[in-house]
Amino acid sequence: MLERFKVPVKDRVYVPQEKARAATEAAFRHAGLDEVGARQCADVLITNDMRGVESHGISNQLRNYLRLYGEGKLNARPDFKIARETDTTALIDSDHALGIHVAPFAMKLAIQKAKKHGTGTVAVINAGHLGGAGYHASLAAQENMIGQAMAGPGGSQTLPTFGAEPRFGTHPIAWAAPARNQPPFLFDVATTQVAGNKIQLARRVGADLEPAWIADMDGEPILERVPVPDKYYQLPFGGTRENASHKGYGMMAMIDIMCNSMTGVGAGFLTGGGGQMFVATDIQAFIDLEEYFDWMDKFLEGLRNTKPAKGHERVLYPGLSEWEETQERAKTGIPYHREVIEWFGSYAAEIGIDVDLR
Amino acid sequence: MLERFKVPVKDRVYVPQEKARAATEAAFRHAGLDEVGARQCADVLITNDMRGVESHGISNQLRNYLRLYGEGKLNARPDFKIARETDTTALIDSDHALGIHVAPFAMKLAIQKAKKHGTGTVAVINAGHLGGAGYHASLAAQENMIGQAMAGPGGSQTLPTFGAEPRFGTHPIAWAAPARNQPPFLFDVATTQVAGNKIQLARRVGADLEPAWIADMDGEPILERVPVPDKYYQLPFGGTRENASHKGYGMMAMIDIMCNSMTGVGAGFLTGGGGQMFVATDIQAFIDLEEYFDWMDKFLEGLRNTKPAKGHERVLYPGLSEWEETQERAKTGIPYHREVIEWFGSYAAEIGIDVDLR
Repeated sequence: MLERFKVPVKDRVYVPQEKARAATEAAFRHAGLDEVGARQCADVLITNDMRGVESHGISNQLRNYLRLYGEGKLNARPDFKIARETDTTALIDSDHALGIHVAPFAMKLAIQKAKKHGTGTVAVINAGHLGGAGYHASLAAQENMIGQAMAGPGGSQTLPTFGAEPRFGTHPIAWAAPARNQPPFLFDVATTQVAGNKIQLARRVGADLEPAWIADMDGEPILERVPVPDKYYQLPFGGTRENASHKGYGMMAMIDIMCNSMTGVGAGFLTGGGGQMFVATDIQAFIDLEEYFDWMDKFLEGLRNTKPAKGHERVLYPGLSEWEETQERAKTGIPYHREVIEWFGSYAAEIGIDVDLR
Repeated sequence: MLERFKVPVKDRVYVPQEKARAATEAAFRHAGLDEVGARQCADVLITNDMRGVESHGISNQLRNYLRLYGEGKLNARPDFKIARETDTTALIDSDHALGIHVAPFAMKLAIQKAKKHGTGTVAVINAGHLGGAGYHASLAAQENMIGQAMAGPGGSQTLPTFGAEPRFGTHPIAWAAPARNQPPFLFDVATTQVAGNKIQLARRVGADLEPAWIADMDGEPILERVPVPDKYYQLPFGGTRENASHKGYGMMAMIDIMCNSMTGVGAGFLTGGGGQMFVATDIQAFIDLEEYFDWMDKFLEGLRNTKPAKGHERVLYPGLSEWEETQERAKTGIPYHREVIEWFGSYAAEIGIDVDLR
């Protein structure tokens, strides 16, 4: 994550992960989830927080989730139904579960199918927020598979290239691949120039947006550095056509097709979208695992050891800095913004649960 | 394709597709391919030329292919061997076939598996140039499936974000999806800012490159418009970190993992890479075809009908302008650069085959 998105030092409250996890589980249980569901949902948020992916951790998400449970817009005790199934595929109707509740279930089903048949592809409909695609893709990598996760949420945020009307959400995609000695590979991105939640985060920490990160309401990319305006549209990654925004747009469209048109949900901009897709590919269907690990470690090591360009300390690979952050936060605790801690404290007091976040 | 990459009007020679196809088949037969192989290879090149994808048609590719056959670096009569196979996956050793020769065979195997089991994923090793990923992905769309194709060629062209040493080629990826009444969706891109072949094309037509399209030999992105320099590195799409080049880099890395580490070829920058991967996903595993087509047509129509931003005539979707170009070129013929026609004529005379390209 770019430095400017981090919580300013003066506002940080370091919380040990066990305490953050216990408090989050308690909040989910209070919202009506069973033990297993609460543990699952808390694990997604805390794993994201440990990785430094604040945009998809407690700070940005938990409040919304709890509010949606409170309003009856999410089902805390969903009955996941398999609406259609083949050897290698399934379509799950999640019964209005939160995405972070059903997505791991879906990916585990994909993994099961891949263990038997080589690959598994599982779609989910009628679910809430995915909570970041990376966590779910990683579940496959933990089973020595390539994991892929994506979602097509909404259609009111992001413009197609040359368009002045929004057609997409942030349409995230993640791929995860295991390694033996190197930290695992985890590519986890929004197909917008910048994750929607990072814009909220930028507003909270008072950070500027970069040129071509967003467009004005007439569809023109804003080519200066600006604070977050009141009204704006997002752009596909690339930002402008010259910088290959058609590649971001094309990926968004593909994700929307697979998550929404192919699942019967219908295009995000017509229906609200929200379909999700999870793919597990068994490495051993192609090659012996040890041979894969030999190559993969050499690949990742070679990326890390790339000579850096002037002005840069080192070359990273996707997942590396988040893995390092996880090691660091295991020692220091998770640096939450004090405002988040204050909210959590008063929320807990209000609903009468006992949390300890210091 | 950006206007500046098109053949200048004064240099155009329009050739009917049948003539271009016949001449190309004859050239492949002379190189040693059997009837079926020659027809297959010509179909890839002519389909790309009809779509206006000059970078992957006769002009940029045929000469190289014929030279490689002549030098014995490609096998004109390959024996495709299935090295490993499951219900839904296969690893094919192509026996040094040209990519455009083996890739359609691989995708057809993936389609066959998907018809039986829902999905098919087929990797190819020991093959030559893929000839663009889009053609192969489209084969699945023609069978009412989602098609995906990608390749991890080499590692000496493109820098990772913040790097000063190359680690990737152009690492192309394509997804294709069918529609009922709208022209089919075909997303087909290099994961570099610009396809490698388009740089050659820019040099030939004297076009400038855009800011952040390439980097100097120290890894610094060149932020001005420049003619193609003698020496340069390519950048992942995005170009700079601020413009999300880490997303292009991450996709390249994922493609390299799936095509090279997972197939035993080994990372492109360590071994030369060249692995290829083809995925077919049966739409009917998730939803009835007619329902899919209803949604897909609405989706594509909605994209086309998006209100354009100021200064733009309309919003396209991936595959639309190439489909329109195909209709146009069916009437006018394919506009080749006269230099290409001259080369083809003298090549034909030299090897003693009869071609008619006027």
